[in-house]
Amino acid sequence: MDFDKTLQELPAYLREFFGKGTVASYIPALARVPAQKFGMALCRVAGPCHRVGDSEERFSIQSISKLFTLSLAMGRCGEELWRRVGREPSGNRFNSLVQLEYERGIPRNPFINAGAIVICDILLDHLPNPKETLRDYLRLLSGSFDIDFDQEVARSEAETGFINYALANFLKGNGNLHNAVEAVLDLYFHQCSLALSCSELARATVHLANAGVSPLLGEALLTGPQVKRLNSLMLTSGTYDAVGEFAYRVGLPAKSGVGGGIAAVLPGDYSVVVWSPELDPSGNSLAGGAALEYLTTVTGKSIF
Amino acid sequence: MDFDKTLQELPAYLREFFGKGTVASYIPALARVPAQKFGMALCRVAGPCHRVGDSEERFSIQSISKLFTLSLAMGRCGEELWRRVGREPSGNRFNSLVQLEYERGIPRNPFINAGAIVICDILLDHLPNPKETLRDYLRLLSGSFDIDFDQEVARSEAETGFINYALANFLKGNGNLHNAVEAVLDLYFHQCSLALSCSELARATVHLANAGVSPLLGEALLTGPQVKRLNSLMLTSGTYDAVGEFAYRVGLPAKSGVGGGIAAVLPGDYSVVVWSPELDPSGNSLAGGAALEYLTTVTGKSIF
Amino acid sequence: MDFDKTLQELPAYLREFFGKGTVASYIPALARVPAQKFGMALCRVAGPCHRVGDSEERFSIQSISKLFTLSLAMGRCGEELWRRVGREPSGNRFNSLVQLEYERGIPRNPFINAGAIVICDILLDHLPNPKETLRDYLRLLSGSFDIDFDQEVARSEAETGFINYALANFLKGNGNLHNAVEAVLDLYFHQCSLALSCSELARATVHLANAGVSPLLGEALLTGPQVKRLNSLMLTSGTYDAVGEFAYRVGLPAKSGVGGGIAAVLPGDYSVVVWSPELDPSGNSLAGGAALEYLTTVTGKSIF
Amino acid sequence: MDFDKTLQELPAYLREFFGKGTVASYIPALARVPAQKFGMALCRVAGPCHRVGDSEERFSIQSISKLFTLSLAMGRCGEELWRRVGREPSGNRFNSLVQLEYERGIPRNPFINAGAIVICDILLDHLPNPKETLRDYLRLLSGSFDIDFDQEVARSEAETGFINYALANFLKGNGNLHNAVEAVLDLYFHQCSLALSCSELARATVHLANAGVSPLLGEALLTGPQVKRLNSLMLTSGTYDAVGEFAYRVGLPAKSGVGGGIAAVLPGDYSVVVWSPELDPSGNSLAGGAALEYLTTVTGKSIF
Repeated sequence: MDFDKTLQELPAYLREFFGKGTVASYIPALARVPAQKFGMALCRVAGPCHRVGDSEERFSIQSISKLFTLSLAMGRCGEELWRRVGREPSGNRFNSLVQLEYERGIPRNPFINAGAIVICDILLDHLPNPKETLRDYLRLLSGSFDIDFDQEVARSEAETGFINYALANFLKGNGNLHNAVEAVLDLYFHQCSLALSCSELARATVHLANAGVSPLLGEALLTGPQVKRLNSLMLTSGTYDAVGEFAYRVGLPAKSGVGGGIAAVLPGDYSVVVWSPELDPSGNSLAGGAALEYLTTVTGKSIF
Repeated sequence: MDFDKTLQELPAYLREFFGKGTVASYIPALARVPAQKFGMALCRVAGPCHRVGDSEERFSIQSISKLFTLSLAMGRCGEELWRRVGREPSGNRFNSLVQLEYERGIPRNPFINAGAIVICDILLDHLPNPKETLRDYLRLLSGSFDIDFDQEVARSEAETGFINYALANFLKGNGNLHNAVEAVLDLYFHQCSLALSCSELARATVHLANAGVSPLLGEALLTGPQVKRLNSLMLTSGTYDAVGEFAYRVGLPAKSGVGGGIAAVLPGDYSVVVWSPELDPSGNSLAGGAALEYLTTVTGKSIF
Repeated sequence: MDFDKTLQELPAYLREFFGKGTVASYIPALARVPAQKFGMALCRVAGPCHRVGDSEERFSIQSISKLFTLSLAMGRCGEELWRRVGREPSGNRFNSLVQLEYERGIPRNPFINAGAIVICDILLDHLPNPKETLRDYLRLLSGSFDIDFDQEVARSEAETGFINYALANFLKGNGNLHNAVEAVLDLYFHQCSLALSCSELARATVHLANAGVSPLLGEALLTGPQVKRLNSLMLTSGTYDAVGEFAYRVGLPAKSGVGGGIAAVLPGDYSVVVWSPELDPSGNSLAGGAALEYLTTVTGKSIF
Repeated sequence: MDFDKTLQELPAYLREFFGKGTVASYIPALARVPAQKFGMALCRVAGPCHRVGDSEERFSIQSISKLFTLSLAMGRCGEELWRRVGREPSGNRFNSLVQLEYERGIPRNPFINAGAIVICDILLDHLPNPKETLRDYLRLLSGSFDIDFDQEVARSEAETGFINYALANFLKGNGNLHNAVEAVLDLYFHQCSLALSCSELARATVHLANAGVSPLLGEALLTGPQVKRLNSLMLTSGTYDAVGEFAYRVGLPAKSGVGGGIAAVLPGDYSVVVWSPELDPSGNSLAGGAALEYLTTVTGKSIF
């Protein structure tokens, strides 16, 4: 399989998809990202990384960060975690309060906002400096030691994040938040502000395609069952209210973010990260989804 | 009609209702109120006030204050108000977020918490010192010039009011709050902390039984249509998710609070306020409801 | 008070309201009723009946019939009835299934469709020929012994009533229907098809303004508490999802139907029925509501 | 990989799971199935079938039939189908009406009851004898030409299926059913009553592990994209409100039924069907799920 060739075909193939989505505009730092950006990086478990386009330019990873906070929490909290967050798809918008009220403050899964906020609370319980730990975890995974939070983004998220404040307060009012709302959301808004490139994110997720063992670091970062948990959660809950359609079109476990990034893995084979800021109505990168669909169609390999 | 006689019969009649409800315990100041307290005051439009029991002891009026903030807002905001708050019963708990999400941040009525929070926002828009104005309005209406906020209660409300923070942030995130969440809730928590006695509250509501004209002050405080609005809202939305049952049993427009107070009016005849801290499952004063039912049954006069 | 004069003023006053609503069109028999029809009849407890316009023309009373089936059921079933139907406003459309599912098959009140269907089931339990009994009850109340079901309407209701079939089957699946779905709905569709004139309906409801005693028949048809129950239910649940607004504008307990009729009472004074086929968005007669608002404003008398 | 050995280990391994679930009891034919039944059959794409326990005994396949009606509908209806049924997990019970109402009669996916009922309607539109076609399709796929409906089960389903009647009528009332409710449900209740053994079902699904080509028949029954659609739908919506947990534990696309059967596939490798009547709280076979988890754990092969 010639991944380089396939990746090089993408810019021409994707041309028709540009201009048909919407760049997230709720904060200035996202709104001003040029809509025509496109980058992709694919790291094989055994072998090199492949790249195309703006693959080395950093972008706001937003909800993709939920993969890493959940990884950290699983390592520290164990099965206890699943008493406070569910593992099922929500059948709802990512920031809906409705289901949370009917289910008494237990978020449906760790990838909707309410669930990710509970995961932040768990990290605050177990780590002395969760922000630093999270940042260092990503530095280690990606091998890029200047990865950092974008403080402008974190500040903007805090200033406009009323629905997240509503979710966190609702969780607190239902007894599913141990720490102060402000502290929990400070961590949450910071995790959303992390800026990485496609290449960095692809390196940081390649262990998810390798049963938890990083081929770069040569060590086990997660157990096999933990990876299975992350991958199955990505497939059933990783792309907002479009997981069914995404599973069909792309056929890979994936986690997307409103910054236009999508991280996906083909277990046993590769991790892949695509970035294109225009979003489709479900909030997933429009050209990014099309690129992944092209990849699994041309290579003839998906999990199905 | 001998109101004095009827009121004197109440303590004996009500004996069986005590010990069967629950005193609100989410903040210490409410939890420590003795459960056996009972007071009632009835002010006739033309004539004297009648009293029984602990009618002169002040209690936390809580949601009954929504009557007075709405009165102030109607006077300042006009029909505009009803674009931001509905006028229909909610068919839900007083602090539900579900309907608010389905109806895009427009609370169903001004007596559920979300609606009252929007009313606070309106007061902040129109008044330089809304807290003082509200307090002075109640001083004027009741004729008691030492009425004040209970700062301990206000502080406790703020410390435990996560669901109200969730509601306010949700409203803000949906564009239905102009002022800062903290400022709006500061007013809201203070209005809930106002402490008045049955007699003071009965005097402060007697104009609602007299087409807006205070027989005590000799002046029109509200227009006829405004009073009709308040009374109809009390009947359809004033007693949480028990308005249908309350309308049947008592047959008077009424507004209750978790402090155990209920204010009611028989238009053209009297205002009446009862206080007994034990609440029934719907959050209304248990003995208070029974006392009002006794009153309208014995006198044979209700709105139906 | 010169009721005749007020009623005669109505046609001119209402002119501006015509052409702004929508005649119900889900069945042919309703769709072909001329939109400009208008009639009103008002029967005083002590005294004559007053009329204007098409007050003697029969129309499909539709949901107004729920008043009479509930009256019959209350007489036969007692308090038991309220274990199977609630008494609170629904805060939802009249035919919503959502609340019914969350509340496990107990309809919020007897005036939403699901509640009325349970009432039919109760009548089937207690009466050998509920259709005939209902028809005869209305003949007796109105003094018109040729009142009957409109079989074309009943048939059309059955043919198009899929949502009602859904409600009835859902109730059955939740154990809140004793009889066969078909039998229950046959009664329900027939009750909706009853055709009466404003005058006949006003006579048939005047006992609701007189503590249950019919001034026409000289006998008690309902007890005082039963009338209080009906009137309070009308006020809190009688006009679909517009009860709060209706209570404010009109200030009378009322029950409306999609045929364009509204029956209302001022306890102690009169019953009034208005008919005008064009409906407002909430499903209540547009000119009918305006006529009742005019009546209570001009006379200065409502329950508030 | 020695599949025979793994399958032979299962009865001992599963012993502890028996007696901890509940056999479906809403119809007599299911209630009387012995709880200790257990069978499994695994058909490799290239190679033999493996069996253990009661693998040749027929059971009521119930919702597993939704796989086959959807297969037939996809072949006849094309993309048009997805305008009438969604492709996303529901986040709700399989027979919930709530989401259906909020989403105006478009079921979330073809595996919840409402979605399967729409699929029946589509089959009635496109096939002269859909019941016979479905039965013959299964006969052909399985190679067992005496497969048939269990008329007792079909009749019982019809007699107790009030919630399904509610769903179908609600769909009809929302314009998403072309044929008569009775005709659609007759097909639906019959599809649920099909009785097959594990071996028969494993043979009938092995093409789903082989890109649509039946290794038994040597011909393409579905296109590659159609198989991808079915498998992705199974993974995201095939096991009621437990898809996330099932994806983690088992890691295979799967469809379960209340008869205690589960059909699953490992694309490129095998189909597997397990049967054990006791269900867990989510409605999936308890020992069946444990057996599949054992299989993918011991073999070390799942889609993740």
